[in-house]
Amino acid sequence: MFLSPFPEKNYCRQNGALVSLQAKIASNAYIGEGTIIYPNVNIADGCHIGSHCIIGEPSASYYERPSDYEFKETFIGNGSIIRSHSIIYAGVEIGDNFQSGHRITIRELSKIGKDCSVGTLSDLQGKLVIGNHVRLHSNVHIGQMSIIDDYVWIYPYVVLTNAPYPPMGELKGVTVKQFAQVCTSAVILPGLTIGENALIGAGAVVTKDVLSERVVLGNPGKDICSVRDLRNEKGKQIYPWKDFLSVYRGYPWQKEEN
Amino acid sequence: MFLSPFPEKNYCRQNGALVSLQAKIASNAYIGEGTIIYPNVNIADGCHIGSHCIIGEPSASYYERPSDYEFKETFIGNGSIIRSHSIIYAGVEIGDNFQSGHRITIRELSKIGKDCSVGTLSDLQGKLVIGNHVRLHSNVHIGQMSIIDDYVWIYPYVVLTNAPYPPMGELKGVTVKQFAQVCTSAVILPGLTIGENALIGAGAVVTKDVLSERVVLGNPGKDICSVRDLRNEKGKQIYPWKDFLSVYRGYPWQKEEN
Amino acid sequence: MFLSPFPEKNYCRQNGALVSLQAKIASNAYIGEGTIIYPNVNIADGCHIGSHCIIGEPSASYYERPSDYEFKETFIGNGSIIRSHSIIYAGVEIGDNFQSGHRITIRELSKIGKDCSVGTLSDLQGKLVIGNHVRLHSNVHIGQMSIIDDYVWIYPYVVLTNAPYPPMGELKGVTVKQFAQVCTSAVILPGLTIGENALIGAGAVVTKDVLSERVVLGNPGKDICSVRDLRNEKGKQIYPWKDFLSVYRGYPWQKEEN
Repeated sequence: MFLSPFPEKNYCRQNGALVSLQAKIASNAYIGEGTIIYPNVNIADGCHIGSHCIIGEPSASYYERPSDYEFKETFIGNGSIIRSHSIIYAGVEIGDNFQSGHRITIRELSKIGKDCSVGTLSDLQGKLVIGNHVRLHSNVHIGQMSIIDDYVWIYPYVVLTNAPYPPMGELKGVTVKQFAQVCTSAVILPGLTIGENALIGAGAVVTKDVLSERVVLGNPGKDICSVRDLRNEKGKQIYPWKDFLSVYRGYPWQKEEN
Repeated sequence: MFLSPFPEKNYCRQNGALVSLQAKIASNAYIGEGTIIYPNVNIADGCHIGSHCIIGEPSASYYERPSDYEFKETFIGNGSIIRSHSIIYAGVEIGDNFQSGHRITIRELSKIGKDCSVGTLSDLQGKLVIGNHVRLHSNVHIGQMSIIDDYVWIYPYVVLTNAPYPPMGELKGVTVKQFAQVCTSAVILPGLTIGENALIGAGAVVTKDVLSERVVLGNPGKDICSVRDLRNEKGKQIYPWKDFLSVYRGYPWQKEEN
Repeated sequence: MFLSPFPEKNYCRQNGALVSLQAKIASNAYIGEGTIIYPNVNIADGCHIGSHCIIGEPSASYYERPSDYEFKETFIGNGSIIRSHSIIYAGVEIGDNFQSGHRITIRELSKIGKDCSVGTLSDLQGKLVIGNHVRLHSNVHIGQMSIIDDYVWIYPYVVLTNAPYPPMGELKGVTVKQFAQVCTSAVILPGLTIGENALIGAGAVVTKDVLSERVVLGNPGKDICSVRDLRNEKGKQIYPWKDFLSVYRGYPWQKEEN
């Protein structure tokens, strides 16, 4: 007979979930089948935690002596939806109205603001500071030490790297400024800053800092023009996007009209 | 005590799975451990559904009022194999002899033909029309509104995008025509058409429509030659591949000889 | 009533796991919630197997006649940590002190040495030979037939391909030699060899063999310089990395000083 990481004196089964006796879960929250809630987790009002999730996952030092591990507080804000098979590490703090796809990972010591979303399979590697109203699409990889400001959009398969001289240990995170957009499969090299309202094209490999409102394309990435020079198929200016967004996407400067 | 998304009056446990009383599962189908079958799911003869899967997952409006949600029909055709940790949304229709890797996601309102396969981690974002005999390899990302015709092959880490002016809301899906192949890590920009029998090289970023039988390589993608000009290491013509496929891969025009 | 892949005469529930009566698990190993251990699995001393994992997953021929399938031996070496939602196929042999992230997949007939690590979401497609002290980061895709020597590092979203003339069936794996590094989102074309101590840049598409100690960048990849020509921001030579690694990373030639 082998050992269990969930001794009966510390965990109980409720509605098909396995829950630490030291967790705090709002009575109007939903918790899915097979989900594990570790100690010192705090799940606020009206959350939906999907099935087969793990909330409060311990970091590497747990494996040295599991019974002595001290779980840092994990906080999930009001009205958040975390879809199935997702893993949130101990020491993560998530603001209100968070939404995730399936199978996301958010590692330790990350702080995420309110009204953010993270798509299916995205992997946030820890020690992150993420603002409000940030949208990370599917399968985005955010290296440790990254800083992502309010209203940033990052699209599928983008990687923010952090090791300037791999495999040496010094890490330098990427900073992405307000309203910037990083398009599909772009790679940002370590320590760089992507300026406010900048647009990084699909598949670009960004090797230098990007100034505000600039468009960068290609491998290696080249500064091509201002976002103000871009036109849609009707010849209409469309960026900076904050000034041209016509549909309601839940931003504070917008009015809901439906 | 928190809430359960699976009230006992509507779900029962069978063989380690959690199954809606409104689901219809063939008596000769296998369902794995911890798998969840939502209402209005129809699993046909001889299917294997792996462990920790979710079939009939509700879409976003479910979270507004879970108890009122109407599950659209989800259909899994005869003899299909869906491997573990996969998620098929409500309103997906999959033809006979489908095969998947692990942890695939197929979102709502997608229709997939017969004899298709989808590899581990692939993420099909919904509102898709996929033909017959289509092979999507591992970790492919298919944006909403894409159309994929019969006999297409798409290889790992390819992304079919759909937002021409992100983050504006108008989406234009990619169309991939019969027998075309999109190789590893290529990105196809929104609204483009990849012609019949075309070959998109590994890592290409495709920014224009691709004509039938053309080879496109690089970032940005350049039209290099006809697939008929390609030769293997013995100097032999090998494309269009339908005309040169010598091993049996289960296509209707092939005879099984073993 | 449907069928179960885990008949009660062959499997038992222990501590929330589902375990074959033909598996061999050390009494000091931990096995997580909802994890499935198939027949002929051997888990050695002091391992931690996370929750919702599958160890000894059967390969494709299982589905032809499940009850007749012969499970090849699956071996997990001493002190290994396999994090949640991971899948290790039957016929995989893993050396001591292996560590994985979450949701990795290692397919059949792969042999992995000691002191290796594989990051979250990485997908090892089978028939692989991987040496000792190899580090594969998150979301790496290793095609079948690849050979990876000791001390290699491969970073996120790298793909080692293997089909020279897709979709034709002949596969030619990539070989990565000792101490080489393949950086984020690079793609290596089929059958190529990456030489000892070579450095492949982020986003490179490698189309030719790479000689020892060479740096290759771009799409298509170009041989730019020797790794000995690279300098860090202080003007100091830093490669070959084995000669300049100052922090303790657990390599045999290093002394632990803390």
